[in-house]
Amino acid sequence: MTDHSSEEVLARFEELTALEAEFEDVELQTIRKANELNEPLYKKRAEIIAKIPHFWALVFEQSPTELDSYILPSDSKVFADCLQSLEITRFEIDDPKGDPRSFSMKFTFSDNEYFKDEVLEKFFWYRKSLDGWQGLVSEPVKVNWKKDHDLTYGLTDAAYKLYEARKKLPKGANETELKEYKSLAEKIENSEDPQLSFFAWFAYVSSYKFVTAEESQQAAKKLAEELEKRKKGEKVDEEEPEDDDEQDYQETEVFPMGDQVATIITEDMWPSAIKYYKLAHEAEDDDEHLSEIEFDDLDDESDGEIDIRALVGKGKKNKASGDLPPAKKPRKA
Amino acid sequence: MTDHSSEEVLARFEELTALEAEFEDVELQTIRKANELNEPLYKKRAEIIAKIPHFWALVFEQSPTELDSYILPSDSKVFADCLQSLEITRFEIDDPKGDPRSFSMKFTFSDNEYFKDEVLEKFFWYRKSLDGWQGLVSEPVKVNWKKDHDLTYGLTDAAYKLYEARKKLPKGANETELKEYKSLAEKIENSEDPQLSFFAWFAYVSSYKFVTAEESQQAAKKLAEELEKRKKGEKVDEEEPEDDDEQDYQETEVFPMGDQVATIITEDMWPSAIKYYKLAHEAEDDDEHLSEIEFDDLDDESDGEIDIRALVGKGKKNKASGDLPPAKKPRKA
Repeated sequence: MTDHSSEEVLARFEELTALEAEFEDVELQTIRKANELNEPLYKKRAEIIAKIPHFWALVFEQSPTELDSYILPSDSKVFADCLQSLEITRFEIDDPKGDPRSFSMKFTFSDNEYFKDEVLEKFFWYRKSLDGWQGLVSEPVKVNWKKDHDLTYGLTDAAYKLYEARKKLPKGANETELKEYKSLAEKIENSEDPQLSFFAWFAYVSSYKFVTAEESQQAAKKLAEELEKRKKGEKVDEEEPEDDDEQDYQETEVFPMGDQVATIITEDMWPSAIKYYKLAHEAEDDDEHLSEIEFDDLDDESDGEIDIRALVGKGKKNKASGDLPPAKKPRKA
Repeated sequence: MTDHSSEEVLARFEELTALEAEFEDVELQTIRKANELNEPLYKKRAEIIAKIPHFWALVFEQSPTELDSYILPSDSKVFADCLQSLEITRFEIDDPKGDPRSFSMKFTFSDNEYFKDEVLEKFFWYRKSLDGWQGLVSEPVKVNWKKDHDLTYGLTDAAYKLYEARKKLPKGANETELKEYKSLAEKIENSEDPQLSFFAWFAYVSSYKFVTAEESQQAAKKLAEELEKRKKGEKVDEEEPEDDDEQDYQETEVFPMGDQVATIITEDMWPSAIKYYKLAHEAEDDDEHLSEIEFDDLDDESDGEIDIRALVGKGKKNKASGDLPPAKKPRKA
């Protein structure tokens, strides 16, 4: 067995850390290459989809199983009623100060009873914090709910208000003293409904804390300098982090798995939307005999299951779909 | 709202299907590009890892949560005892008749009490069936278990025997009549243990049925011809598939989620192994005070939890690890 004294282990760690940075470079190159190749195809797809009513509602219905618990029957109903389009853009793909892993998700809606917004767009920035965390952060999106139709019972409003108040806060001031902070934290703590609407996801901020662009650039610079030292075989001084940051940032996080939900949509549902749309059509064929029963269930949301195909008026077998290729036991690749 | 008669819907379907093929081309190009860029890094990583005892056992322990339920405490013990290396190769990356999505997983073991094999290598081929399915298929790997040490209680042996018998079967003959078929199907049906060893995964065949290279090439040819027609705007005759194939191939599938387990290891654990190894070290620091208790649990496998860090003799805080960078609340990116 190889010698594995502490010094030896530490040396291997330094080598692995340097190598991790090279892997990250390759990952970013690969994302850029894939984005470049896919861009014209996504454009073409959007043109075809624009002619297909309820495309995205059907895709969300048939979407990856990991998403199921985040989309309530009442959310599915909103999608079926008015979701017009979805567009995902890697808006920092060529920005040297940004990150190709950042993306935005733009939902377009037709006139509806729930909210006044035609567009709800949420931005996710891939950032690094000075204390070693990295991941996706976002800002709460204001949803202009119509009276008595707020599916989040005030959560998106409260999160947006805290976000606005935070921006006016002097640097270094403690946000936990803000009335907007207390209000949101209480709202989350006292929430009796374990079922969170998908629309609360628009209020998502971070799985750790919000990291600014400035902090992220500083962190990237620090990491690059450390990497240079490692490449030269120099020892990197890892200061013990100042662990006086006692704030529990998650106290005001409305949608704790928001980054993972965004990632599943972006990395699975979005590239494979055609596959999910076809699966929805096949499920329609299989469920044909069920459609009447499920129509009756439409108003009973407590049932936990709603048939979107019924919602979008596709409960009856479509003549065309009989001609579709049979994807026997298709795999969620 | 757009006209969406059946003919209109069918026309859109044809366009989407043609577009899907273009997306698939881009996916394959991207896999090839990523493979080319990552290959030298994986080589470098293997050289560093070779000097780190128990690297892969620690990675498996800290591996993606989706894997947790597939690796029993007794499997972890085998990894800790004798797993030397893991190597994943996209062995058809440049094979025009193959698929860049195919891969092999090669496990190397030191001398141990469980089995005689130094190497267990499992191949996964990405293939398409003539009836429209596509996905990963594999062949059972023979594990030469030592007496009374078979963690799968005969499952890998029975699966391997069926595989051998199947090869000798005349073309068109019904395998369900084979005694090896009945024996395996019974073994699976009568299995009382709901906890399947990870090693049963070596017997995995398919989530649908085994598809030969020949069938896959025929299917690819058929799809390419259909695509050509679609591009010219010609109608593609979709024959209704002969649905007289009544065999339940899953009756002899030992490890039903085998393809998904392979995919999680290949697409998440393998590229992010350094991250998981570091997490294992951090967990070690956090759990330091627990290590003595967990040492006591080593023989009690019914406990459901085993501390591999204790198994590999890392229960005590390593001097070096105090100097490691603190990855505060690291994200499984």
